[in-house]
Amino acid sequence: MAHSETLSRLEATIQSRRQADPGSSYVAKLNARGLNKIAQKLGEEATETVIAALVEDRQALVGEAADLIFHLVVLLAAKDIPLADVMAELDRREGVSGLAEKAARPS
Amino acid sequence: MAHSETLSRLEATIQSRRQADPGSSYVAKLNARGLNKIAQKLGEEATETVIAALVEDRQALVGEAADLIFHLVVLLAAKDIPLADVMAELDRREGVSGLAEKAARPS
Amino acid sequence: MAHSETLSRLEATIQSRRQADPGSSYVAKLNARGLNKIAQKLGEEATETVIAALVEDRQALVGEAADLIFHLVVLLAAKDIPLADVMAELDRREGVSGLAEKAARPS
Amino acid sequence: MAHSETLSRLEATIQSRRQADPGSSYVAKLNARGLNKIAQKLGEEATETVIAALVEDRQALVGEAADLIFHLVVLLAAKDIPLADVMAELDRREGVSGLAEKAARPS
Repeated sequence: MAHSETLSRLEATIQSRRQADPGSSYVAKLNARGLNKIAQKLGEEATETVIAALVEDRQALVGEAADLIFHLVVLLAAKDIPLADVMAELDRREGVSGLAEKAARPS
Repeated sequence: MAHSETLSRLEATIQSRRQADPGSSYVAKLNARGLNKIAQKLGEEATETVIAALVEDRQALVGEAADLIFHLVVLLAAKDIPLADVMAELDRREGVSGLAEKAARPS
Repeated sequence: MAHSETLSRLEATIQSRRQADPGSSYVAKLNARGLNKIAQKLGEEATETVIAALVEDRQALVGEAADLIFHLVVLLAAKDIPLADVMAELDRREGVSGLAEKAARPS
Repeated sequence: MAHSETLSRLEATIQSRRQADPGSSYVAKLNARGLNKIAQKLGEEATETVIAALVEDRQALVGEAADLIFHLVVLLAAKDIPLADVMAELDRREGVSGLAEKAARPS
């Protein structure tokens, strides 16, 4: 279905560009600048998502949420973590959802 | 496939719990506290993801990335934005990727 | 003493530049872009401070902390809040410090 | 003057509590949890400051700005960086202010 194709393709695209020419690829440029810079961008996109949710319009929030997911996938790729591992973690929690789940995790 | 099922199910679960008893559901509790609180949680999870990526282990980062996605879906649901809209935005950008894509967007 | 002179002068400088030519003043440029942009910059500087504290050197952290304070003063000025009001709040809390203070504040 | 006294006293208070009983001091508790936790708190307070600036009232912003400064001083103390070093950096920049200053710094 759509979500799967989108994220799988996004992950594959990002993986394929990590070693590309930083002058022609945004992903390669971010990776060339290093993990600190990638993490910094994730933080920035989260702040922009917060702001869009509170005071901007629907389309702005859709765009910022897309930016946030994009940079999260870049960050995971830079750490060699497959997105599937994160999905598996979300699946694992599905059974122990709600407050029970939160209580079960270390704070 | 896996990613799709995970996120679709997560979104459905979150939608079904928005109006639940805040005493028995974390999602209901967050929604009862309002959009500001949900946005705040998203910001917190992003900071925790940044920290995990830089100085914690792989499993910590997987957990924080899962938390970040979870709270992003809660935020989108609170704004009545289907996750499919964000996926469609990511698909739309796929054709104009890399630096070209960034240049094409308003800064 | 030094701290007072620094922050008082910084606040005065920022106030004097809010209405300056955006082409010649960073403060004027930020104000011209609006409160959302100023708030976004504060969020970015906080992320950079977190990263510097965890994985960069001492001088980087000093620089990021200075950036964070600078943008906080710009944000307060944009909302017409004197820095003295924030200092008065810190003074007020001084008597009820530690865990007692946290417990006394609404969460 | 007021700003100086406030911050100097705040820094002294925080320094004196770093090694206190974590059960009776919020500062000691944060330090016992480690640098990651202190950095995380700084990130959280920045997000809360952003939210307060955009959608909450003046008193909320004053409170969040105070929280942000408080946790920045805790973070600097945990790294053994005197607040005076940050003030000196702000003073140093004062001569090269505005866009010129930003251009002069490495991005």
